[in-house]
Amino acid sequence: MSANSSDPTQIERWRQRYTALRAHTEVLAAPLSAEDQAIQSMPDASPTKWHQAHTSWFFETLLLAPLLPGYRLFDPAYRYLFNSYYEALGPRHPRPQRGLLSRPGLAEVQAYRAHVDAAMGQLLERIESAALPLLELGLQHEQQHQELMLTDILHAFSCNPLLPAYREETPPRHAPHALEWLSHPGGQVEVGAGEDGFAFDNERPRHAALLAPFRIADRLVTCGEFADFIADGGYRQPSLWLSDGWALALAQGWQQPAYWLAPGDARAPASEQWQVFGLHGLRPLDPHAPVQQLSFYEAAAYAEWAGARLPTEFEWEAACGLPGIAQLFDQAWQWTRSAYHPYPGFRPLAGAVGEYNGKFMVGQLVLRGGSLATPAGHARPSYRNFFPPAARWQFSGLRLARDGESSS
Amino acid sequence: MSANSSDPTQIERWRQRYTALRAHTEVLAAPLSAEDQAIQSMPDASPTKWHQAHTSWFFETLLLAPLLPGYRLFDPAYRYLFNSYYEALGPRHPRPQRGLLSRPGLAEVQAYRAHVDAAMGQLLERIESAALPLLELGLQHEQQHQELMLTDILHAFSCNPLLPAYREETPPRHAPHALEWLSHPGGQVEVGAGEDGFAFDNERPRHAALLAPFRIADRLVTCGEFADFIADGGYRQPSLWLSDGWALALAQGWQQPAYWLAPGDARAPASEQWQVFGLHGLRPLDPHAPVQQLSFYEAAAYAEWAGARLPTEFEWEAACGLPGIAQLFDQAWQWTRSAYHPYPGFRPLAGAVGEYNGKFMVGQLVLRGGSLATPAGHARPSYRNFFPPAARWQFSGLRLARDGESSS
Amino acid sequence: MSANSSDPTQIERWRQRYTALRAHTEVLAAPLSAEDQAIQSMPDASPTKWHQAHTSWFFETLLLAPLLPGYRLFDPAYRYLFNSYYEALGPRHPRPQRGLLSRPGLAEVQAYRAHVDAAMGQLLERIESAALPLLELGLQHEQQHQELMLTDILHAFSCNPLLPAYREETPPRHAPHALEWLSHPGGQVEVGAGEDGFAFDNERPRHAALLAPFRIADRLVTCGEFADFIADGGYRQPSLWLSDGWALALAQGWQQPAYWLAPGDARAPASEQWQVFGLHGLRPLDPHAPVQQLSFYEAAAYAEWAGARLPTEFEWEAACGLPGIAQLFDQAWQWTRSAYHPYPGFRPLAGAVGEYNGKFMVGQLVLRGGSLATPAGHARPSYRNFFPPAARWQFSGLRLARDGESSS
Amino acid sequence: MSANSSDPTQIERWRQRYTALRAHTEVLAAPLSAEDQAIQSMPDASPTKWHQAHTSWFFETLLLAPLLPGYRLFDPAYRYLFNSYYEALGPRHPRPQRGLLSRPGLAEVQAYRAHVDAAMGQLLERIESAALPLLELGLQHEQQHQELMLTDILHAFSCNPLLPAYREETPPRHAPHALEWLSHPGGQVEVGAGEDGFAFDNERPRHAALLAPFRIADRLVTCGEFADFIADGGYRQPSLWLSDGWALALAQGWQQPAYWLAPGDARAPASEQWQVFGLHGLRPLDPHAPVQQLSFYEAAAYAEWAGARLPTEFEWEAACGLPGIAQLFDQAWQWTRSAYHPYPGFRPLAGAVGEYNGKFMVGQLVLRGGSLATPAGHARPSYRNFFPPAARWQFSGLRLARDGESSS
Repeated sequence: MSANSSDPTQIERWRQRYTALRAHTEVLAAPLSAEDQAIQSMPDASPTKWHQAHTSWFFETLLLAPLLPGYRLFDPAYRYLFNSYYEALGPRHPRPQRGLLSRPGLAEVQAYRAHVDAAMGQLLERIESAALPLLELGLQHEQQHQELMLTDILHAFSCNPLLPAYREETPPRHAPHALEWLSHPGGQVEVGAGEDGFAFDNERPRHAALLAPFRIADRLVTCGEFADFIADGGYRQPSLWLSDGWALALAQGWQQPAYWLAPGDARAPASEQWQVFGLHGLRPLDPHAPVQQLSFYEAAAYAEWAGARLPTEFEWEAACGLPGIAQLFDQAWQWTRSAYHPYPGFRPLAGAVGEYNGKFMVGQLVLRGGSLATPAGHARPSYRNFFPPAARWQFSGLRLARDGESSS
Repeated sequence: MSANSSDPTQIERWRQRYTALRAHTEVLAAPLSAEDQAIQSMPDASPTKWHQAHTSWFFETLLLAPLLPGYRLFDPAYRYLFNSYYEALGPRHPRPQRGLLSRPGLAEVQAYRAHVDAAMGQLLERIESAALPLLELGLQHEQQHQELMLTDILHAFSCNPLLPAYREETPPRHAPHALEWLSHPGGQVEVGAGEDGFAFDNERPRHAALLAPFRIADRLVTCGEFADFIADGGYRQPSLWLSDGWALALAQGWQQPAYWLAPGDARAPASEQWQVFGLHGLRPLDPHAPVQQLSFYEAAAYAEWAGARLPTEFEWEAACGLPGIAQLFDQAWQWTRSAYHPYPGFRPLAGAVGEYNGKFMVGQLVLRGGSLATPAGHARPSYRNFFPPAARWQFSGLRLARDGESSS
Repeated sequence: MSANSSDPTQIERWRQRYTALRAHTEVLAAPLSAEDQAIQSMPDASPTKWHQAHTSWFFETLLLAPLLPGYRLFDPAYRYLFNSYYEALGPRHPRPQRGLLSRPGLAEVQAYRAHVDAAMGQLLERIESAALPLLELGLQHEQQHQELMLTDILHAFSCNPLLPAYREETPPRHAPHALEWLSHPGGQVEVGAGEDGFAFDNERPRHAALLAPFRIADRLVTCGEFADFIADGGYRQPSLWLSDGWALALAQGWQQPAYWLAPGDARAPASEQWQVFGLHGLRPLDPHAPVQQLSFYEAAAYAEWAGARLPTEFEWEAACGLPGIAQLFDQAWQWTRSAYHPYPGFRPLAGAVGEYNGKFMVGQLVLRGGSLATPAGHARPSYRNFFPPAARWQFSGLRLARDGESSS
Repeated sequence: MSANSSDPTQIERWRQRYTALRAHTEVLAAPLSAEDQAIQSMPDASPTKWHQAHTSWFFETLLLAPLLPGYRLFDPAYRYLFNSYYEALGPRHPRPQRGLLSRPGLAEVQAYRAHVDAAMGQLLERIESAALPLLELGLQHEQQHQELMLTDILHAFSCNPLLPAYREETPPRHAPHALEWLSHPGGQVEVGAGEDGFAFDNERPRHAALLAPFRIADRLVTCGEFADFIADGGYRQPSLWLSDGWALALAQGWQQPAYWLAPGDARAPASEQWQVFGLHGLRPLDPHAPVQQLSFYEAAAYAEWAGARLPTEFEWEAACGLPGIAQLFDQAWQWTRSAYHPYPGFRPLAGAVGEYNGKFMVGQLVLRGGSLATPAGHARPSYRNFFPPAARWQFSGLRLARDGESSS
């Protein structure tokens, strides 16, 4: 992290990382046609093409334009088109209309990426140490969008009656895994990210927290377990639900997770069993696979039904080190019973990137861990993902917890 | 119209007409990328790709499937995907979600068209006379969608901050044309389509109507005249407006026609004059060009301001034969002061195509004439186009009328 | 009608009529508590108290303020509070918030009425002939609101789970009446109001219209007949419905007329038969009573199911004189197959009252006749009532018609 | 609290408290007409009459029906009409339609109160100790509704262009009070309610929390200070706002607190200074009075502008004991930077009253303290009030806090 423009080894490492990471974005987009990459299925999701352009806009706007002498903007209109939510960077294209941008076409966005990559190559040769945190942020930012590209195209495909598969190959089935309850003694723990290494501003400062003794499941709730909840009337019992969740479930007619098809569903009527739509298309429910695409409301109702609860984000973080704990970062983000609020002493980053995290710190819940769509190396124990409680299009599941004093 | 399967000359004529008409659809789509053809900018507009598929679905569903022995559906899912509004033909994809269909891709829809065209070639060799009205309807139907392809992509492009042009060439400017008032004596006239030749069911039966004497403008209202209305506060005077129109204009902040940019508009701030967005992109206002993309409310408010009124649909039809009348079919559809209701003795077509027109006969206004986007040969004096009064994305303008008794 | 200030007999007649008509408003309000008179159950309906105040505002604003020297406004705030929709008379309280006006209280509105009545007494002593049309309009206007008071409180009570009765007494049952088809030869007829006697501007000018031969039912469609329509699946057959009506019926879950309760309805579960809510509260369906509170869409669907159609407004008017025709003015307004548009040569009244009718002439359908809630003497053959096609809270039913050429 | 049916002194104390508390509800309603008490100005607010009935329903349903032998329900329909949100107690009247209940009238609701009070008198003579917590809850519940009666009628009156005053007398002006920052050393503190004395379930269990050193203002933010925020462009600077708050402020055109009228406001145009609408009607802004009716978003934006932040709920609770702290319970509820979530080990009450608090524990923020509308003796340091962040109709203001390490 302490590179400067005179250390060729460091520069070469950054260059390789930049190149590999940017290429991964394009690998993820490769199975998708230009048409696929253009659609936006709801205001909260963005087109693949937009993700490809916006991540480039981030480098262009925050690194190239201020730091690379003589840098020529690829297209001045992109400042407006591909700004996501930075008020400090001027007006921007309305989020719900990202799917109307047939122009610029995908080929032009690919040229934009190449233009930015070439200029970043020049910048990396002369970059000052002081700019490296922004470079790091740009890379981490692009990794976040790599996951969103998958969540968003999956939502778009879920709206298509043909239910297209993003990946054609058959996924492996999960092996059974008997749930174990792991105990944590509680007490004062340290949470959040320390000063070394990269972390988002919302993970800092590291600080002490007090926990009561608790137990936590060594694995995530499975699809089979969730099917039992459904079969037991879980979607019809208001006593299991938070009030907002029950109102929403009634208003929208929820009967199962968003991407599940009940036996006899008109979209695939031949099946006599539950089917689940995912990146591999429509597949028979795998009873041992972690349940995904749950809203917080569904996760909390399930936990209530199971005689348990969701862990808080600090319980989750403290449990990361417990021997035997599994499925932390590689299956599904795990809803916690914690609101996404600032840590004591929180300070947003300076400049426009101060809007990166802090301004969203109300009305959302923290998810911890990582998912099968999270890029390798992106997650860590202190990572705070966040979504509104109604969000049903993420790779989001749950891990149960219980108070430590009582026996299950 | 009186062809049968044993008349090779007639068959050849139908084949040529079918081939040329279908090819014209593809010519209209040619300037558009696959991404352009996939977007839907509002529920009332459809993607170009959808129009291409739906017109093929019409031939497949109403002609090929019932009449061509051994015909194989291109894809059974298309029955659902590309049914527009025929309740008798089963459930269908929700209209507001047509823009989410990245699959089937454009190439697949083009293959669908080729598949249908090949089968139609076989069918034409053996078609019975009784089926020719449906064939004719299919062709007229595709012509209607040819116009909608242009209105819909224009709306989509109007939502793109880049304001792309469908056609790159510079359009010719219109010459000045001093307005003349043409007089009609009124009395009993015959309106509607007779039994010979093609007409939609909504144009029949031909019947007598009684008109008071009236005068009618020999040309359409121009952009320059409409700019005068704006400059005179036309959008700020409730007394000029129908109540529903005024409420809508206030709620949506109307200040000018939907595709006009005022001097200084943020989307093109350099201009010091009115600009108008159209198929040729953003162009300086042409004062002698007919104004377009007006809602009925705006047209009626303009007429009130001008001390005139809109003609009824029967006045318009009777005026078609007046010497000197111009711009009937080739510039803009002309809002009339007539609701779209059934004619005395109206009978919808038999079968599923009975839903073609009749079920829309409430809540809409009749437009007469034709526009620069109407395919050659498609319009006629008895033709009844119809849209809700708030529609602002059609090539729709107005022609003034006045009572005959008073002098202007 | 040709009175002037020096004719004491005429003045006395006006005074008596004014007094009786105003008193009738209060008789209608008498069964209602102050709380009843304050509620507004939807934006299209107004509180009884508001009707009482607005009709007084009409006299105050259009007659007393300009014509009675020294007249003192009861409360200047009422100009704003009780203006209904007159743009020319300045801003006004938003219609959907009329139910929030607990102040002024009912007692204050009653004082307002007394204040206006006293001043009108003074004005009548000196009124000029030229002002009599406005006086007449004020009286006719109040009669219109007398009917609306009943429609609106009935809607409000229909939203109360207690289903209160406006009138406690048991209504008489209707006798059976076998439907007869009356024939009209068509041809040229005169329609609309002539110059003599009062008529609203929308009934003028009287003019010729051309009719094809037609037949028309001598009575209205009954509740028993409508129950047959329901039993035959009338609310489940899209082929019977206009497209807009079907979409609305689906979206709102229509299964029966708005004020009908099916056997077993949770609001009155003991009943094993249809019940109908009306001014007399909840009553068993009377099979021979005219069906009421239908939208245009339901009326048109019923007519289609019955192998008939709705008459046009001119057919209706021409049929008024047919021997044997019944239930013209005293049961239910009758939806016609005519849009509410201006007559040829229509001129709105001069001044603010020019907004009375003309600005509403789009998007609505004409109803003809009168209802059990229409004040005696208010209706006439040329009267044009109008509502949007979705309106379900009026005393609105239907009379069937058929083309004359075919036999039933 | 440990009374039983054989302790006449205890019983008499309960009776006196019950009687006085119930009478206070009626005192609060006394300035309001029956019409005032019937209106509902938005779904989140309830009519005064409804509050009077619902609090009685609570005693009837949870105490009288199960515990008083032979108790006769006043009206079985009230089970449905006046259930607020208890799913376990069956279906209920939709919340947004409470304002349509002109029946039962106020007099009938008053009779209902008398009926319940008489029966409660009987029950108190024989009540078992086990039932006393429910009795206590019923009383605390009624106190909560006493405050809501004031917030809700104030909102209703704020929607009336006449801006009526709930209280006619002139309120005293607040004296200036220079803000002092009080320091707290942080560390481990005990928060929440212990086992003794009444507390709601959401205040328990009492538990340890860890605080960093912080400073907190000794008084609330004043109207004068908030006017400075406005004058400095506080409502126009997105950098001060949380993202959701900024979007809402833009969408709804916020320029000032909900009940403030800017100089020249059309509702009271003569004033050249800020005016504030409150229980005493429209009054000139009192610069030293605590600002009220703020949303969380506005409170947080103000704090950001002031270089401070909101305290967490545990900071607030710990600060309760700091010498010099003022305006804790008697002016305005104080938004905290804490989401309304369950405490570690939280257990809802058994039975239907388990829905009292727990099911609302997501999507809301905690307010601490009490307001000028809070009944005497109702508040305490551990009390957790809660509202969604957009709520602008409560007596809600803010107290500033800062991290302890930095100097202001």
